[in-house]
Amino acid sequence: MANIETSLLGFERGEQKDLLFRAQDSLSGDQLETDYAHASEEEIARACELASKASLSMASLSGRDKAHFLRNLADRLDSLVEELVAIMPRETGLPEPRVRAETGRTSGQLRMFATLLEKGNWVDARIDRAQPDRQPLPKPDLRAMLRPVGPVAVFCASNFPLAFSVAGGDSASAWAAGCPVIVKAHHAHPGTALLVGLAVRESIRACNLPEGAFSLLYGSGSTVGRTLVTHPVIRAVGFTGSRSGGRALFDLANSRPEPIPVFAEMSSVNPIFVLPGMAQNQLDEFVTGLSASAALGVGQFCTNPGIVFHPGGDFGSRLIDRYREKMQQIGNGPMLHEGIRESYDKGLDRLSASEGVEVVLRSADGAGCMAGPCILKTNLEDFLKNSTMHEEVFGPSTLLVSYENSSDLIKVADALEGQLTASLFGSVDDLDTHATLLERLETLAGRLIFNQFPTGVEVCGAVVHGGPFPATTDGRSTSVGEGAILRFARPVCYQGFPDDLLPDELKEANPLALSRSES
Amino acid sequence: MANIETSLLGFERGEQKDLLFRAQDSLSGDQLETDYAHASEEEIARACELASKASLSMASLSGRDKAHFLRNLADRLDSLVEELVAIMPRETGLPEPRVRAETGRTSGQLRMFATLLEKGNWVDARIDRAQPDRQPLPKPDLRAMLRPVGPVAVFCASNFPLAFSVAGGDSASAWAAGCPVIVKAHHAHPGTALLVGLAVRESIRACNLPEGAFSLLYGSGSTVGRTLVTHPVIRAVGFTGSRSGGRALFDLANSRPEPIPVFAEMSSVNPIFVLPGMAQNQLDEFVTGLSASAALGVGQFCTNPGIVFHPGGDFGSRLIDRYREKMQQIGNGPMLHEGIRESYDKGLDRLSASEGVEVVLRSADGAGCMAGPCILKTNLEDFLKNSTMHEEVFGPSTLLVSYENSSDLIKVADALEGQLTASLFGSVDDLDTHATLLERLETLAGRLIFNQFPTGVEVCGAVVHGGPFPATTDGRSTSVGEGAILRFARPVCYQGFPDDLLPDELKEANPLALSRSES
Repeated sequence: MANIETSLLGFERGEQKDLLFRAQDSLSGDQLETDYAHASEEEIARACELASKASLSMASLSGRDKAHFLRNLADRLDSLVEELVAIMPRETGLPEPRVRAETGRTSGQLRMFATLLEKGNWVDARIDRAQPDRQPLPKPDLRAMLRPVGPVAVFCASNFPLAFSVAGGDSASAWAAGCPVIVKAHHAHPGTALLVGLAVRESIRACNLPEGAFSLLYGSGSTVGRTLVTHPVIRAVGFTGSRSGGRALFDLANSRPEPIPVFAEMSSVNPIFVLPGMAQNQLDEFVTGLSASAALGVGQFCTNPGIVFHPGGDFGSRLIDRYREKMQQIGNGPMLHEGIRESYDKGLDRLSASEGVEVVLRSADGAGCMAGPCILKTNLEDFLKNSTMHEEVFGPSTLLVSYENSSDLIKVADALEGQLTASLFGSVDDLDTHATLLERLETLAGRLIFNQFPTGVEVCGAVVHGGPFPATTDGRSTSVGEGAILRFARPVCYQGFPDDLLPDELKEANPLALSRSES
Repeated sequence: MANIETSLLGFERGEQKDLLFRAQDSLSGDQLETDYAHASEEEIARACELASKASLSMASLSGRDKAHFLRNLADRLDSLVEELVAIMPRETGLPEPRVRAETGRTSGQLRMFATLLEKGNWVDARIDRAQPDRQPLPKPDLRAMLRPVGPVAVFCASNFPLAFSVAGGDSASAWAAGCPVIVKAHHAHPGTALLVGLAVRESIRACNLPEGAFSLLYGSGSTVGRTLVTHPVIRAVGFTGSRSGGRALFDLANSRPEPIPVFAEMSSVNPIFVLPGMAQNQLDEFVTGLSASAALGVGQFCTNPGIVFHPGGDFGSRLIDRYREKMQQIGNGPMLHEGIRESYDKGLDRLSASEGVEVVLRSADGAGCMAGPCILKTNLEDFLKNSTMHEEVFGPSTLLVSYENSSDLIKVADALEGQLTASLFGSVDDLDTHATLLERLETLAGRLIFNQFPTGVEVCGAVVHGGPFPATTDGRSTSVGEGAILRFARPVCYQGFPDDLLPDELKEANPLALSRSES
């Protein structure tokens, strides 16, 4: 009899085995051998009960305690890499080097938050001291800092089985804030999720965190996901995925009697603007970089550059020719699962059929999960007329849009929806000349890039991986980098408290040596 | 012919005069003499168009420019006080000293944000310098700071005709962030709104801000408010008012094709917990303070303490007796408008009819807007059984809830909805003994208070005037204090930009001498 794996409910395992699913081998299209059981309603409730119990003791952990846990987990993940290499490529089609790189990124993220906690300044400590003699009224003593929001539901992303899944950026930032996490696994990589999930559990035991600090649920978004997001215990949601999926969760969370925030990172075409000052000799470097960025990971990155605006005329023709030469050299690759490949083909069909769009390059449809690069071209006039061309096609395709007059690019900025990134290529003088375009792009995107490509998101303090809807459901947030922790924290103010009952962060003697805002 | 006042659309005035309304004299109940015209659809569209135009130039203002405007407006408001004294008490029933105090609070808020802008650190500047030689990949230069979200819709609050209306906290923080503001006036105080609105307009002219930085619309929430919140130009909403009103705006904003955040501050009973260690000789001071807090402004504060949990037995009986004596001395006063007084009476009827509730003190229903103090009492068991007792009754009433065992107070923390504040009275030892209660209250409320009353919200850096739903629609926000600016800003990251094209806040030489997070 085949092995049946069930959800992790704190330190327990689920017992219901009524409804099973298997992952698909991304290369062969065959089902993989392990059965996974959908979590039952009772199991979801159990995970929530454990998270609720864990919530207060998680909130009372010091920054150092939490950092210790995150570092322990980072080390454990790093030492798991050979096991991940054995399973993740089969479940996702992602090659071994990517597994190694993403493991490093994931443990790196955990360590980044550990360092942030050890420094401690992220809590934004604010102190207003009492002025008992102030006229006409005395001023009370007020001290505020960020505190955890409570249990967070995290949805694994299909395209980041490690860095935005079980112990990925959403979970890491929620734990760092002091929140218990309940993860819903993605159906495409349940085995990868289990490996990481068991490691999280070990770290929780090793570091004496409360059992309910983590649970891992198997099941579909429309049943398990729905039940989880509407459970009264859950205080916030982290999600990376499709626009329809993110919007559904957002609407669901807002329809609760007590609405909760959903941080969904969803959809972005990451426009690239080639400005008129791009030198002829910059062109080769540009198309080389563009093809690498557009085809990276078979185009399955949120920051994949989907649309490029470029000058028409001779320069434009050369750009198209050179880009075709580059992209032709890129073979078919496996997408994460068959559904994604089907959506990619449908998206290309839709674009190709749009008025004014010509196909420059399109590989034959691959079997199963296999897909190849695609280039389409149109002109600015047609592009502005048809908003379906503005939508994301998830995969290694590029829509090249030629313009006659770069002052018309402002119309693009006015027409496009919210974006994660917008990139400008050209000379420094171009940026000066196109200041108005730049101003508008700033209202459109979370990250503005000059002469670099949007993929390869740096995980650091200053990065912003967010943007106005539909890039995310909360344009004031980032899901990558230190700022991600702010999604799962809220300010709490203590008025008139005796010093020794204040959190250490707010005590008069500043025992944690924080940088505080004081007056 | 009577004077007809219309909306302020930038520097223009509305011209439609089809649908008119008048404010009510809060003392006599009579209509006041001035007609105000509801804004037409075209006029709302015009205000939005102006705000959209103003958005980019507002975003490019320096902190110093914005501070100059806020200080200019603060001075202008202060010099307006005699005119406000002439109109605001008639429209609102609020006495002259309150008008003077609230004018000072409002100009004080504007100056607080000016100081914040002059210091400049609120933008949370983060710098990650390039590491071109890093292995395996070079690190790009990334620099991030907070930038304005765009045009903000602000709804005047009935209970704060100045401090949470035209140039109140929501508008001040939105302007400070660099956002144009469109204000919807409250039907109860249109004349107060006009006086302040004209002053804002003068300051905008005097400081060369763009015309669309401010518009003031007259009309109802269900028509003008609705049109405004669903207009594509609007990027965020600020609101202080009823739970039903706030929730309606929240649902409306989330149903947009492109949802926008709503910061609604709505409903809170601000529980007070009298712990067993309160000394007998603390009782007089407590009931004096409680009656002053509960009756302040005829009970019309968001932080009005509506429910008090206290030990039963002799101590409890004495507390009730003394409190009745105090509250009996407080006469009837005018509520802001007749609708609020009617809601107050209905709320008291509902509470009085609840099982286990006894009326300790209730004045006869006043005429028109007049209302008096009320005390009801019950015990913890009955309170926990009936969640309608947990809801806010807006006005000068107190529900006294006696308990036998203070460990049962944890059940209260579990039963109550989100709150702006929670106050504890007793000895320092009490706080130690009730650490678990304190931990739970922290998840419930934005501000925890020891031996002080919740009214009289200090406007400063460390204050938090927010809390989980239904206290607000976004428990991670505050609508009072410096943190209020964060509601109307979003992080933007600049990658690979030439230094002289970066905002001053992010330039390598740090010309504004900000405290930045750098690595």
